Amino acid sequence: MTNRELMERDLAHIWHPCTQMKDHEQIPIIPIKRAKGVYLYDFDGNRYLDAISSWWVNLFGHSNEYINSKIQEQLNQVEHLIFAGFTHEPIVRLSERLVKITPAGLNRCFYADNGSSAVEIALKMSFHYFKNKGSLRPYFVSLTNSYHGETLGALAVGDVELYKDTYKEILIKTLQTPVPKDQTPQAALEASEKFKQLLEKYQGQVSALIVEPLIQFAGYMHMYHPLFLQEVRKICDEFDVHLIADEIAVGFGRSGTMFACEQAGISPDFLCLSKGLTGGYLPLSVVLTTDEVYSAFYCDYTELKAFLHSHSYTGNALACAAANATLDLFEKEDALKKNIEKSRYIIQKLEKFKELKNVKEVRYKGMTFAVELKGYDFKQRIGLKINQECLKRELFVRPLGNVVYFLPPYVITFEEIDKMVDTVFEVVKEL
Amino acid sequence: MTNRELMERDLAHIWHPCTQMKDHEQIPIIPIKRAKGVYLYDFDGNRYLDAISSWWVNLFGHSNEYINSKIQEQLNQVEHLIFAGFTHEPIVRLSERLVKITPAGLNRCFYADNGSSAVEIALKMSFHYFKNKGSLRPYFVSLTNSYHGETLGALAVGDVELYKDTYKEILIKTLQTPVPKDQTPQAALEASEKFKQLLEKYQGQVSALIVEPLIQFAGYMHMYHPLFLQEVRKICDEFDVHLIADEIAVGFGRSGTMFACEQAGISPDFLCLSKGLTGGYLPLSVVLTTDEVYSAFYCDYTELKAFLHSHSYTGNALACAAANATLDLFEKEDALKKNIEKSRYIIQKLEKFKELKNVKEVRYKGMTFAVELKGYDFKQRIGLKINQECLKRELFVRPLGNVVYFLPPYVITFEEIDKMVDTVFEVVKEL
Repeated sequence: MTNRELMERDLAHIWHPCTQMKDHEQIPIIPIKRAKGVYLYDFDGNRYLDAISSWWVNLFGHSNEYINSKIQEQLNQVEHLIFAGFTHEPIVRLSERLVKITPAGLNRCFYADNGSSAVEIALKMSFHYFKNKGSLRPYFVSLTNSYHGETLGALAVGDVELYKDTYKEILIKTLQTPVPKDQTPQAALEASEKFKQLLEKYQGQVSALIVEPLIQFAGYMHMYHPLFLQEVRKICDEFDVHLIADEIAVGFGRSGTMFACEQAGISPDFLCLSKGLTGGYLPLSVVLTTDEVYSAFYCDYTELKAFLHSHSYTGNALACAAANATLDLFEKEDALKKNIEKSRYIIQKLEKFKELKNVKEVRYKGMTFAVELKGYDFKQRIGLKINQECLKRELFVRPLGNVVYFLPPYVITFEEIDKMVDTVFEVVKEL
Repeated sequence: MTNRELMERDLAHIWHPCTQMKDHEQIPIIPIKRAKGVYLYDFDGNRYLDAISSWWVNLFGHSNEYINSKIQEQLNQVEHLIFAGFTHEPIVRLSERLVKITPAGLNRCFYADNGSSAVEIALKMSFHYFKNKGSLRPYFVSLTNSYHGETLGALAVGDVELYKDTYKEILIKTLQTPVPKDQTPQAALEASEKFKQLLEKYQGQVSALIVEPLIQFAGYMHMYHPLFLQEVRKICDEFDVHLIADEIAVGFGRSGTMFACEQAGISPDFLCLSKGLTGGYLPLSVVLTTDEVYSAFYCDYTELKAFLHSHSYTGNALACAAANATLDLFEKEDALKKNIEKSRYIIQKLEKFKELKNVKEVRYKGMTFAVELKGYDFKQRIGLKINQECLKRELFVRPLGNVVYFLPPYVITFEEIDKMVDTVFEVVKEL
């Protein structure tokens, strides 16, 4: 089998996500035969360093032997069973571990399959909580430039025009408040003041504020100061509004700490997790919340206050086995500590980008690194050019507009870091 | 480890789907240690025949050796990779097979992780299609008593009050048209006439009609005649409105044919599949659509007409391996043919229910069987009583309100069928 053969079969029937399919008249779809560590290998014998962890999900490398072995073990026990009325050991263990490692007070785990569904659960639970308490609060607040997923509820609280604008007539009305404009404490204070003003205006009508703590990933890797989280936590408390932390992308170490909320020392009322949760193996998501929220739904059945949300594959045992194996690897490999060194090394290597005329800003936090270019119109599709040039040089990056970013698997070596950063540098320099 | 021990650990942290958690003060959560074929085995040595295929997903039994072996094979190749710009062999093969076995004209596959997300994709694609064609159509039509999932868009086209009513203030407005009131052709004609009247009223404002073909599963296993599908297909064509077939539950043989649309000889514009797609193993969903729809999005990138929906785990390779293995088993086992015999046997065994005073109706289609009881108020929770009594007798059923139903894995034996039906009969008789 060759790349061309599989590509042609693919293009005959498959509609790829987040893709203008006509692009593939010029650009080949690359069929991957096997993957190992940070590398993807195609059918023609080429390899590509996966510098964005396959859409920000992979942590400990592809086809990781330890995770593989744990999924194989689970296959021999139970692959999946209904998660109403029944339970299984991997999910009980996973829940105990998640409660332990997430911010204080998040004691209850509600599971789903993907990030969008987790966001929808948090929104529904927050709204339903207030309804169970006798208060009708139809509004959610989100940050400008935010992205929370693709289902219509998740899209409604998003603010990246590219994804949202087309569907505005079929989205519920939500409110937006400005994200801090940069990483300074001053910007954090200014933005939180705006949020307070918004709540004053909509007093008693808002269920929750939803934020991506510290980094807006799909929002072109925009970053802000932890002070903003501290301030909005205080304001939410003052106005009795929930704080939903969407750590779907930033969780599991991408911010440098296990969860980004830790850097602000705050606990949200809802924490949404997915992506890294299974180490990049299988779709699984979870919403953690407080006993306070849980107790508002806890009553006699006939009061009809239960949260009746479900997905058939909720609590999938194979995905939970992958998640437990991933948490094992965090411990075994002391990954967060090792990442500090890798992060420092990458930051130092990024210095040279600042000297390039077409670079606007270099920014980073933990294991997330972005280089924003300037001087290109969206029609030039500079990101796509960089993507194509890098692929020729064994590197896979997928810029967001004019922003090239690195989000490598944590198992990347220093040698591989050199290759990753130096390749992009060459390409950007030659543009 | 004992049931009690794991149950207590579970209840300390887990919030189960579609569950009033307070119920578990009286009713134990059952921790499952292993599963094999139609049986779930707990930590205290009890077993339960899974008569509803773990929420309608399992087809060829739990911990199926063949599917296990195919997932293990895939683990050694590639577990998951980004599905934009790349592809892999299992998904190419799966897509070819799906296009081949689904109704004619459905030539394009767009993947996601769960049923709700598939419904959201179909809704967004339909709306976006008309927008790309220059027509703004903000309404979707669904059937009364319908259920299409839990995310806010999917919930908005649902009509089961129990799931939807609480959230009405945060749902977009949709239109409902009556489902045929029973399985007669007359009811089908009456209901389709109503649909036509609705489209006349909202001419040019409706993107799509979404239906669960033949059986409304969460709608208390309500069933209707294939003539309704033929009629609404004609009406949709007449008014240039899309038809979305949600075969998430009914697909893969539950209606007796591989897909329910076959019984009406129609092709929808969108077909949503999930649940049985992976044989009950892993979350995966797909929306199949036509070249006509695909081509409305196919243009130069800068026209900004692409469908930018994505989920990180879209096209998961492990889930695709499970799906291919499931399709293999349909062929190897000649499952649809064998099901005809099993279906006949179950129908004949259900006859005796008709003699019971508390039985209102027995209805069935293919491998879906329902016994509707009468004379019970919802506060009596007769379904829960039946569930509890059956569990004592090694059988797991989970009635919907007053409707007990059977949706067994296709590998169920005639002996196991006897046990399944006879146990429920005893329990219902003794109520």
